[in-house]
Amino acid sequence: MSDYRLPFQDILFVLKELIGIEALNKLPSLTAITESDLSAILDTAGKFASERLAPLNRCGDLQGAILKNGNVQTTPGFPEVYQAYCDAGWSSCSADPTYGGQGLPQVINTALFDGWNAANLSFSLCNTLTESAAQLISEHGTTKQCNTYLPKLISGEWTGAMAMTEPQAGSDVGSILCSASPETNAYRLKGQKIFISWGDHDLAENIIYLVLARMPNSPTGSRGISLFVVPKFLPDGKGGIDQRNDVQCINIETKLGIHASPTCVMEFGPKEGALGWLVGEPNRGLNAMFTMMNIARLAVGNEGLGIAERAYQQAGSYAKSRFQGKNKNNSPLKIIDYPDVQRMLLSMKARVEAMRALCYDAALSVDLSRHHPDQKIKTFYYDRVALLTPIVKAWCTDGAVEVTSTNIQIHGGAGYIEETGAPQLYRDARITPIYEGTNGIQARDLVKRKIGDDDGFAMNAFIEEMRQFDGALSTSNDRTIAAIRGRFAEAGATLARTTHSIIDLLKSDPNTAEAAATPFLKLAGTVIGGYYMARSALIAESKIMENTTKNDFYRSKLITALFYAENILPEATSSALAATGGAAAVAQMQPEYF
Amino acid sequence: MSDYRLPFQDILFVLKELIGIEALNKLPSLTAITESDLSAILDTAGKFASERLAPLNRCGDLQGAILKNGNVQTTPGFPEVYQAYCDAGWSSCSADPTYGGQGLPQVINTALFDGWNAANLSFSLCNTLTESAAQLISEHGTTKQCNTYLPKLISGEWTGAMAMTEPQAGSDVGSILCSASPETNAYRLKGQKIFISWGDHDLAENIIYLVLARMPNSPTGSRGISLFVVPKFLPDGKGGIDQRNDVQCINIETKLGIHASPTCVMEFGPKEGALGWLVGEPNRGLNAMFTMMNIARLAVGNEGLGIAERAYQQAGSYAKSRFQGKNKNNSPLKIIDYPDVQRMLLSMKARVEAMRALCYDAALSVDLSRHHPDQKIKTFYYDRVALLTPIVKAWCTDGAVEVTSTNIQIHGGAGYIEETGAPQLYRDARITPIYEGTNGIQARDLVKRKIGDDDGFAMNAFIEEMRQFDGALSTSNDRTIAAIRGRFAEAGATLARTTHSIIDLLKSDPNTAEAAATPFLKLAGTVIGGYYMARSALIAESKIMENTTKNDFYRSKLITALFYAENILPEATSSALAATGGAAAVAQMQPEYF
Repeated sequence: MSDYRLPFQDILFVLKELIGIEALNKLPSLTAITESDLSAILDTAGKFASERLAPLNRCGDLQGAILKNGNVQTTPGFPEVYQAYCDAGWSSCSADPTYGGQGLPQVINTALFDGWNAANLSFSLCNTLTESAAQLISEHGTTKQCNTYLPKLISGEWTGAMAMTEPQAGSDVGSILCSASPETNAYRLKGQKIFISWGDHDLAENIIYLVLARMPNSPTGSRGISLFVVPKFLPDGKGGIDQRNDVQCINIETKLGIHASPTCVMEFGPKEGALGWLVGEPNRGLNAMFTMMNIARLAVGNEGLGIAERAYQQAGSYAKSRFQGKNKNNSPLKIIDYPDVQRMLLSMKARVEAMRALCYDAALSVDLSRHHPDQKIKTFYYDRVALLTPIVKAWCTDGAVEVTSTNIQIHGGAGYIEETGAPQLYRDARITPIYEGTNGIQARDLVKRKIGDDDGFAMNAFIEEMRQFDGALSTSNDRTIAAIRGRFAEAGATLARTTHSIIDLLKSDPNTAEAAATPFLKLAGTVIGGYYMARSALIAESKIMENTTKNDFYRSKLITALFYAENILPEATSSALAATGGAAAVAQMQPEYF
Repeated sequence: MSDYRLPFQDILFVLKELIGIEALNKLPSLTAITESDLSAILDTAGKFASERLAPLNRCGDLQGAILKNGNVQTTPGFPEVYQAYCDAGWSSCSADPTYGGQGLPQVINTALFDGWNAANLSFSLCNTLTESAAQLISEHGTTKQCNTYLPKLISGEWTGAMAMTEPQAGSDVGSILCSASPETNAYRLKGQKIFISWGDHDLAENIIYLVLARMPNSPTGSRGISLFVVPKFLPDGKGGIDQRNDVQCINIETKLGIHASPTCVMEFGPKEGALGWLVGEPNRGLNAMFTMMNIARLAVGNEGLGIAERAYQQAGSYAKSRFQGKNKNNSPLKIIDYPDVQRMLLSMKARVEAMRALCYDAALSVDLSRHHPDQKIKTFYYDRVALLTPIVKAWCTDGAVEVTSTNIQIHGGAGYIEETGAPQLYRDARITPIYEGTNGIQARDLVKRKIGDDDGFAMNAFIEEMRQFDGALSTSNDRTIAAIRGRFAEAGATLARTTHSIIDLLKSDPNTAEAAATPFLKLAGTVIGGYYMARSALIAESKIMENTTKNDFYRSKLITALFYAENILPEATSSALAATGGAAAVAQMQPEYF
């Protein structure tokens, strides 16, 4: 298995130079963070990721979670490292200080998860779910629910799990059947839920399920679904746990990857019914779930980033150490000396950098949407997050599949051997385009809701922001910047034009617009990624002029941005053609033709 | 695990209507084949693939080959099905009748392997290797070697294996160290070989290794490598086997996929040295190996096709049976009713069809290059095969990775569960871009040898053939054909222009040409695939006008070709931009910048 080191320089570049997190220090409701604080946090996190989480990644793959006598046992070493993770305060970083959190911005948490996800995706998924559960309860729960659950979830003593899917209800959440019958002060839940990540385990003393279920006589479909909090052990009201609730893991799935993350089939109420409490309003469970889901979707995009970063590191280190062939002077060559390997590495590096900038900027927008004192600015960032969420989720996870595949390819035959760890990254990455809403659903969300609902207002605002940036690029005399500018302007115009077509199509032929959604999302991701790369390039170019000790770092950034502009941005053209003309063939196809 | 059925209609369409195999019946040295023969062969093969091979595919994944007391044991059921395969004569289909073969054209064998690869890639790989070994011996071996080995390899009583790679010598074959010391009438080989597919097993009584090794005082590098035939058991000269040779499997790799295919570490000569005999001329082993490798590379491209076909079948059958959501009238919808799922299925179908046409046409060219009585035509097809080989290998295997990934995506959460079989196809497919020369090496071969060596002659001939076809397209009044024609003409012009640039670049800056090789190969594959799809479309359109009972079949072909033209052909533009402008960034990058 490969080593992993947190990419400090790249992270600091994005946080400080590219997106400018110092803006957050002006916001009254966030804990201010100094440069030295930031360095210290990243330094400590980097050590924890490299020394504690990364070494367990392959163990988790080889010896995944197992179900034994009705209880899930995690990979040896996981319980200890989970305890250490909580003890170090990582579980509480960006949580609300009212309930014991440290109140750090979401963008800092995103940088930390860049490391956790890379080091050990199976492990970090548990913490992502716990943070999502806490988020959901804090937004929709009663004061009592907040007081009961939030301190425990934030400290990591208890973990969270989302119980939505049922065998007949996957992407179609509206068709769930799990029932919730009212009793005095509580409900009794009955039904089977599948695909419950970290649905049972031995890391913490309690697990808090957020369960979608139907109350008696509720409307059919998605408007009759309510959200319940169902603890594995009932809280004793004094911060401890009392008797076991009627909820049971009955199977765990054998999966392509993330073996250390138990994917559980959970039976709620096999006996008397599982005790649960309503969260939010009756029949509004899906709405509550969706407010949480934006954050979870951003988190999954960030998983794509982390795992792609690790694959890039592994490929780079292999390419720098593997000798094959000789040059004209008969000196041995490393495979990194071959142009095709350099091209592959650059393609990985370019995608990872664009993904990181996109993920972090979306997280910064989350912070601004939550904490900015000006309501108008808050709303602006809220809309920006809504727009970017499906793009972050789908584009970064598709990218992760591609980057982890390129890692295998750079390894040649060794890339197919499990011992190298390259196959695990490829297998682990493949879940990310699926869970938290498949990437097809993200694309539909982008087109139908995020663009259709506001007639392209938020998207056009973003396009205008990118167009404005062309002015900044035009001030440079650098030839590389000029080359990037040309490609970027063209791609931006393509996105603008295609957005216009999609808005028209949504009105005239919504089915065809839906068939165009996936190439449209790819187009948007490619161009927006190019925007961040162009911004990076301009910063790098000005730093190169200053001729600092970090000249190589900035030169690498500039060349990587050029590579992106000339090798990845052109994909905007083909995606745009597919999004505009390509969907017509889909409309002509009949199911029996397949 | 999914079912598998040989796609008769599609295969017959390509063989008879698209590429026209009846031309082969005029060749004197090939066994003529009637329409009813062809149907009978495909019918029997289809049954064998569905009923015998496909059911063992998942068993092989779950319970792969193991090493036990120095011998490899294959998955239970494999020895029996291998025996049945040989008994039915499948091992001898396209082999030389002089040695017991049936002398069927290679293109028919390619159609059969379409099925074998889809049904059970691990299994069929063994037969591919045996056929390659027989091919190599027949082209370079002595009469005695041919008489000793060919009848046994063709009957399948013995299998073949290629022993090239060593730990320090992967893509750089020239640096192998395995030694061959002359003795009276033979050589003693000593050295370790890795990544030997089917290097040991219990399917057959003997294994014939073709081993690259160095004789004493041979020149360094690739000009000092000779080829040897090394049998596991020494032939007794009467068609049987005698004593065990000094060759031993010492380990088998744990791989991402094709678990039933043992990938062996082989020790040649751990004791007294393994007895081997020179094949071909001394120090010309690589040349001998390369004549075989073209065929093996076409075979691997065909593996990509087979596994992609199976993934397409699985996705289609899942999409037609999985219900999610309801329409406006509250009737349940299948996921195939969703435009995004239709788009994914069409993208799979379009790629599979283009891959099939390309693979079969390349195989037909192999037949014509071997059997055509006119030497000029023979040479023309020889060059065409040489040109198409790296494209078939790399484009079809990259396509297989993509199509098997889309299969997972169509399954949603279920796609990540091993039980469905979708992950196995994805894992199995991932070897194909690696072995028989990584796809990066294919791209370099295309650019440096296949285009560089003849200054683009063969490529420009193919481009001219495609341009000529525009005339045929122009005769149609059909709107769909017109749309396809527009995209195809544009893509063809892009390929012509880019080929020109690459030829210039090869002269002015060969390193940058090498960095452009992979996007150039993708461009060539995309456009050539588009050529076959356009030809299919024109045939389909004329058949639709005839209004036969197969109207749905032809309509599906036409729409699929339209989809290809509007969704896949546009990738030519982005690949061309990457191939021309994109390599400059690679040239600026320094190894320490990564």
